[in-house]
Formats: sequence, structure tokens, C-alpha cells
Amino acid sequence: MLKNPFFENKGPFKLSKINEKLLISINLDTSVKNFKVFDVKNLAEASEQDITFFHSNKYKNLAKNTKAFACITKEKLAQYLPAKCIKLIVNDVLFATAKVTEDFYPESIIDNNNQNLFPIKNSFKKIRCGNNTFVGPNVDIGEDSEVGHNTLIEQNVKIGKKCFIGSNVILRNTLIEDCVHILDGAIIGKKGFGFIPNKVKNYRYPHIGYVHIKKNSEIGCSSTIDRGSLSNTIIGENTYLDNQVHIAHNVKIGNNCIIAGQVGIAGSSNIGDNVMIGGQAGISGHLKIGNNVQIGGGSGVIKNIPDNSKVMGYPAIDIKNFVKKIKKK
Amino acid sequence: MLKNPFFENKGPFKLSKINEKLLISINLDTSVKNFKVFDVKNLAEASEQDITFFHSNKYKNLAKNTKAFACITKEKLAQYLPAKCIKLIVNDVLFATAKVTEDFYPESIIDNNNQNLFPIKNSFKKIRCGNNTFVGPNVDIGEDSEVGHNTLIEQNVKIGKKCFIGSNVILRNTLIEDCVHILDGAIIGKKGFGFIPNKVKNYRYPHIGYVHIKKNSEIGCSSTIDRGSLSNTIIGENTYLDNQVHIAHNVKIGNNCIIAGQVGIAGSSNIGDNVMIGGQAGISGHLKIGNNVQIGGGSGVIKNIPDNSKVMGYPAIDIKNFVKKIKKK
Amino acid sequence: MLKNPFFENKGPFKLSKINEKLLISINLDTSVKNFKVFDVKNLAEASEQDITFFHSNKYKNLAKNTKAFACITKEKLAQYLPAKCIKLIVNDVLFATAKVTEDFYPESIIDNNNQNLFPIKNSFKKIRCGNNTFVGPNVDIGEDSEVGHNTLIEQNVKIGKKCFIGSNVILRNTLIEDCVHILDGAIIGKKGFGFIPNKVKNYRYPHIGYVHIKKNSEIGCSSTIDRGSLSNTIIGENTYLDNQVHIAHNVKIGNNCIIAGQVGIAGSSNIGDNVMIGGQAGISGHLKIGNNVQIGGGSGVIKNIPDNSKVMGYPAIDIKNFVKKIKKK
Repeated sequence: MLKNPFFENKGPFKLSKINEKLLISINLDTSVKNFKVFDVKNLAEASEQDITFFHSNKYKNLAKNTKAFACITKEKLAQYLPAKCIKLIVNDVLFATAKVTEDFYPESIIDNNNQNLFPIKNSFKKIRCGNNTFVGPNVDIGEDSEVGHNTLIEQNVKIGKKCFIGSNVILRNTLIEDCVHILDGAIIGKKGFGFIPNKVKNYRYPHIGYVHIKKNSEIGCSSTIDRGSLSNTIIGENTYLDNQVHIAHNVKIGNNCIIAGQVGIAGSSNIGDNVMIGGQAGISGHLKIGNNVQIGGGSGVIKNIPDNSKVMGYPAIDIKNFVKKIKKK
Repeated sequence: MLKNPFFENKGPFKLSKINEKLLISINLDTSVKNFKVFDVKNLAEASEQDITFFHSNKYKNLAKNTKAFACITKEKLAQYLPAKCIKLIVNDVLFATAKVTEDFYPESIIDNNNQNLFPIKNSFKKIRCGNNTFVGPNVDIGEDSEVGHNTLIEQNVKIGKKCFIGSNVILRNTLIEDCVHILDGAIIGKKGFGFIPNKVKNYRYPHIGYVHIKKNSEIGCSSTIDRGSLSNTIIGENTYLDNQVHIAHNVKIGNNCIIAGQVGIAGSSNIGDNVMIGGQAGISGHLKIGNNVQIGGGSGVIKNIPDNSKVMGYPAIDIKNFVKKIKKK
Repeated sequence: MLKNPFFENKGPFKLSKINEKLLISINLDTSVKNFKVFDVKNLAEASEQDITFFHSNKYKNLAKNTKAFACITKEKLAQYLPAKCIKLIVNDVLFATAKVTEDFYPESIIDNNNQNLFPIKNSFKKIRCGNNTFVGPNVDIGEDSEVGHNTLIEQNVKIGKKCFIGSNVILRNTLIEDCVHILDGAIIGKKGFGFIPNKVKNYRYPHIGYVHIKKNSEIGCSSTIDRGSLSNTIIGENTYLDNQVHIAHNVKIGNNCIIAGQVGIAGSSNIGDNVMIGGQAGISGHLKIGNNVQIGGGSGVIKNIPDNSKVMGYPAIDIKNFVKKIKKK
């Protein structure tokens, strides 16, 4: 993962400062206390200068191999981390991680609309655009792209060349490559539905990831794509989404996928290349769907699907078994 | 239920006038004929001065205890009503009730957009707001609330303090408490999908209820929440709805609920407190879902669910039985 | 099907020119080569002056009776066509048909927003309308119709009398009869999700059909209705769609239907009259649903349904069998 292009990192912070924030008092060497932590990343992406987090034994294997300097975790899980990784033991790993992330990226927790938008014509004289279309700070639009009416391109948006952005579209924190079509009414780049439940007032989790839409893709009308929390939400090359599709935060979709109307993909799932998903199908969170998979319309996928499979049903099973089951009745 | 804050009640009307409207000629004492009826309410909420309706034996128990002065019903059902309640016997109870409701609240049947909106800046100088945002009559917005771009706050909307209303949002007939977030593209407060089918031209039912969103709640992007017909649609405190959720008229959702993307809840269902509903799940109309219930993603709930249950499947069953069923295959 | 009112037909073209385009060299009589082809239509609708296409043996019966002068097809299927019909044999029938359609209707492949819209008040002085509402070329709006705020009526839209078009609506290539209600946020008439997959860059199929909404109908908030590819998408008289419904290209829905929230109907399916579809139900593509059919909420319909049936489940089966199956568990 490259340096975050959209949210300003207020780090580095000394580990001792992070400890204070988490109200942890462990005896640490002075050298460790004064160590400067540069970023907060997930187990796989963290470098030797970063802090990471480990909250579920589902991620044991990633934990064993993390390069992170320090890791926010709980007592039971600490054993799985490398010896040299500093363990910061807390009761609620996600809450503590959210608190630390907020220090590094204070702006990532605010998701209010940017009020200071200007007519697109003022900033991009050559871009063909409709009425009542506005852009905010840190926006770039490539040559020969065009934008419809009533569209808002809020802060932190890069649009490639020959793109077509429809009407009533809302974009923020999104990187769009060349020749992408975003159809009318799509809303892309708002924070994901990630928060820490609390009986009085839920605590909103920071979302420092962005949405990355690769070249030649198409996003259908009224679809929603949320930006990632600690990693990005990715739509691969030449992948087409139909109308009213919902893609949750951290989802990664491969190249040449075809995703029909009203499909929903829950947070952090990975979809391979050449995957076809029928209308209204749903895919649970944190799953891995292989390459060349076909998922029948209306299916509910609740476990990983290997490459080259055809599945259908709720829960989705191999299509041959699904057909047998129907005939039995 | 408090006095309706949004639709003007044109009553009281004499019972004889209501009878004329319904083309009923019953011999009634003069005192009864001249009795002034103040409002039309459902069986549970009607007072001694109101008229109510009773159209299905599902509501027998409510009928027995209604305090209403008079009740629109059919011959077979009249026996279940209290002796002192005046029975107005008709063939089509819902149609007759709609006709009477229309007399009390003639404006509730019109759902056209209010054409006379003004820039929010004219009326609320202190509210931070984006471009092209308009408000209509009978609107109030609390301190430190802010509004995005292209948003329409039509008539009959009260917004509390520290609320965040996104862009491309449409609000009408809605009461929003403090610290509520309404995300981009949500449409809240239009009349429900309630009408009396007729082969030539359906008859639209009046909707005199409003949408009540309690404090600290969040409504996701492109979600729709319809206002109630005779009671209100309610979203409890600290309840979060993800993107593309649909909440039909008269639905009541408790506090601290988490409702994932693309969930749909059909008309008049009641959801308890601390309920979690997975993505794309659907809940049929007129059901009661208890407190602390967890409903798996993609489930279809077609019967009441008791407190503290975990259900999944279509139709949704206890999750242990669902898991067994899968393993059997 | 009448002459296409919205897309200009650049034909007629000589058959020899069409052959060149398809890179076919067959020995044809001069009279045949010089024959002027007037339009491209489906097997059922093509006249003696038109070209058609035949790509799947599902359509054998239609192929036998086509009146088309010529037909794009593949070797195996050619035998089913009438003797006098000229067979143009290609490897990829849909791709070849798309190429030919593009020649007849070059503008049908472009779906970019029309940038040259003007305030509705300039063109339609008598129409009551809200703020920031624009119309494009070839638009007509009938008497006593009204339009909300932020609505875009792009090119090729005919609206009847006494219609109500809400706010944030986008219309193009749509024919709306009298007394139709289009609620807020609906997007109607964009090209369907039809394209020919290609690993580098999918090829978008031309869509020359339009959306036809018949009198007294209602389209719910945030619903999407795509226009047809070679035939039209049709919503019958007095048919009501709830919120967040998706109707794909070429779908034809009869009169007096009631379609609840979040329903999705995939491409080219036919729905009869008086059909009721419960919330979140999905109907696969290319199916025929009879008259007076009732489909339970959440159902997934994957085969044709005869008249007067009640079905439920995924896959949807007769409701009596569905109820039995539940009780067995």
C-alpha cells in the first residue's frame, strides 16, 4: 500500500504517547518508549515502523508473520505474535485501534459533506459538464472526461482520462482510472458501516482507506461503494456493476467481473477475477471468492468459494447439488 | 400518540356527517348522531371521542378493549366490539376508513413535492449548509446542525441539535432528534406503499403519520423510510441503518439496533431493542421481533421472533436448526 | 412496434453493406445484395424488410415463423429459419447484431448525459415545477402535470397529462402516459446492463428501445427502470412499484400489478396482469409469469409460472408445497 494520498498522517508518534492514550503502563525500555511509530496498518501491510492490531484468532497466520514494530492485541492472542513485536494488551482491541488511528488521521473520522465546493467550470475549464456540478479541494479530472448534472465531486478525488461521470453522483476519497463510467445516482467513497457498538452512543471507527476503481469499469445507477477502514475498497479493471449494487468497506473485486443488479457484498470480502454474480445475490463479510466463479442470482454466500466453481442457493452450494435438491422435492 | 404536529385536523365532525359520507343509514339516537368525533385512530390509540376501524379478526383482542366512540367494521366482526361502541357496518372497511380519514386530514393524501421552497440560508442564517439546499414551511433546524448540497427539507420537518444531514437528501413530515446523521441520498417521510387496489385506478390511502428518528441514530446512503398511515414510523435511539435499507410505513424499530445494507422491513412490523439484522435480510409485515434478536444476513423472516433468539434462513429458523439442516445436505 | 420515436434510424442499408460490416462473403444474387434493409428487430417483430437475429435454440419456434428478410445466426441454428430468409452465418451472433444495430442507430450506444439542458420554465411556462429542474431536446410535458426539484428530464421524454414527477428524478428515452406518479430519486430510461464481455474491454450493446409507462401507474422512490435493447421496457396501466425496485431492460409488466419494495426483475422477463410480488423477491431473466400470479416476499423465481398460481421460496414453488416443506422441518 502506497502512502495514503488522501488523509494527512499526523504521525510519527512516540510509542510512549500511544501507550498513554491507551492507558497502558508497561515497563518498556527507553529506546522502545521513544521509538517513533509512523503509521497504523493491518497485520499484512504493516512495516517495521508501524503499529498494527490483532483481535481474532482467525488472523493467527497473518499475526505470526507481521513485521509491525508493535501490535494492539488481547492477552490470549499475544502468544501468536513474533517475539520482537511489542505487545500492547487491551480489553477492546478494535476500540483501542480506532483511538490510535484517530490520532494519526484525525480527519478520517469526520464524514460531513465539504461545504466549500465550487462550480466545476471554475477549476476545470476544459471539462464538459452539466448544470449545478461542484468540486472541492484535492480533486483532479483527466482530459476528455465529462460530468453530468447536480454531481458533487467532494474532496480527495482523482478521475482519469475519458471517464464518464453521470448526474446526481456523489464522489469523495476515490481514485478512478481511465475510461471508467459512473452512472447516475451512484454514491462512492463515504465511510463504511464500521463502528464500535455502545449502548448510549456508538463509536464511529475511522476510515482512512479510499475507493479505487480501475480502468474500463462501470458502476451502475444508485449503487453505493464505501471506502475502506484501514485498507482500500477496490473494483478491478473492466468490471461492471449493475444498478443498486452495494459494496461495503474493504471489499476487493478482481478484473473482468460482472455483478448484476441489487447484489450486496459485505465488508472485507475478496472477489477474484472473471467472477459472475447474479442479481440480488449476497456475499457475507471476510470471505474469499476464487477466480472464474459463477454465483447464481439470489444466492447467499456464507463461506469461501474455490476457483472455477458454480454455486447457487442460500446458503450457496455447488450448482449440481442445488439442482439435485430441487428435483428431490 | 400526541396531537398530530404536521397535518391539520379539520374535525370534529358529527357522527351523522360521517355516516352520510359512508352512505350508511342506521337508526341512531339524536344524541349519538350529533356526537362530535374528534379524530380517526387505530383500535389501541383511539379515545372516547374518536372513531376507529376493525377489518380483520387478527385484531380481535384489540377490538374488545377499544375505547373508541364508534368503529367502522363489517357485519361478522361487529360482535367483538364493546357494547357501547357504535358500529358502522360497511363492505370495505379500509376503503371506508380511508374516506373518513381524508375528511379529517385532506392534506395527508397529497404527496406532491412542495414547490415553494426557499434557500436554507434565508431562513436559517446560522446553519452551515452546502449549495442548492432548500427548505419549505413548518421546518425547524437545531443549533450546530449542518446540511449538505442539493438537499430538500420540505414541509413539516423538525431537526434537533448537532445533526448532520448529507447531500441529495429529501426530508418531509419527519421529526429528527439530536445528534442524528442522515447520509447522502436518503429519502424520508414520503407516504407509504398503502392503497386500496382497484382495477381501473387504485385508491391512495391517506398517510397522517410521520417518521420519528430518535437521538444518536444514523440512516445510511440511499435508504428510504416511509411515513405511517394512522400511526408513526419510528427509528429508536442510537440505531444505525446501513446503505440502501428500506423501512416501510408504520414500522417501529427499538434502540441500539444495527441494520446492515439492503435490509427491507415491510409495513407495520415492530422490532425490539438491541436487534442486529444482517445484510439483505427481509422482514414481512405486521410481525413482532423481540429484544436482543440476531437475524442472519439474507434471512427471510415470516413469523414473530421471541426475545434473545438467533435466527437465519428463508424462512428464518433458529440458527442451530439452520446449521444442522446445512450439514445434513 | 411502432417506428422508433426516439432514436433516428440511419437506414435503409443494402444487404451487401451489412455483409461487408460482418466480414461475410457469401455468394448472393445481385437482387438480394442490393435489397434495402430498413430496420433491425427481434424475430417476432421483424417485417419482410427487416434484418433479425437468432442466437439460441430457446427461440426455435419464433425463428420458424419470422418474417425477416435476413437473419444473423450461427451454422447450427440456420436450419430452423424459413427457407426464404437469407442466413448470415457468424461466430458471435450477439456481437454481430450489436455491430449492425450500431450502424442503424449510432446514437443509441452513447448514454452520456445530455449537457445542453435548459430550465423547464423556459420551455414549459405553464408547468408547475420546483427549483433547479431542467429539460433537454425532444421533451413534451402534458397539461396539469407537475415536476419537483433537481429533476432532469433529458432528451426523448414524453409525459402525459396530470402526471406527478418528483424531485431528484432522472428521465430519458421514456414515454409516460396520463396520471402517472414517478416518486423521488427514480432513474428511468438509461441503457440496460447489456454488453458483450471481453477480457480487455467489454463491448456495450446498443439499446434502441425505450421505457413505456402506461396510465395511472406509480414508480416508487429510488427505483431504476432500464430501457430496452431491441424492444421496449413496459410498465402496464395502474401498476404500482414500491421503493428501490429494479426493472431491467426489455421487461414487460402487465396491468394492475403490485410490486413491493426492493423487488428485482431481470432482463426480458414478461409479467402478466394482476400480479402481486412481495418485497425483495427476484425474478430471473427471460421468464414468463402468468396473469393473477402471487409471488411471496423474498422468493427467487427461476422458471415460468402459469396463470393464477401462488408461489413462494427460493427457488419459488407452489405455496402449498412451500408450507408443507416448512412444517416437515
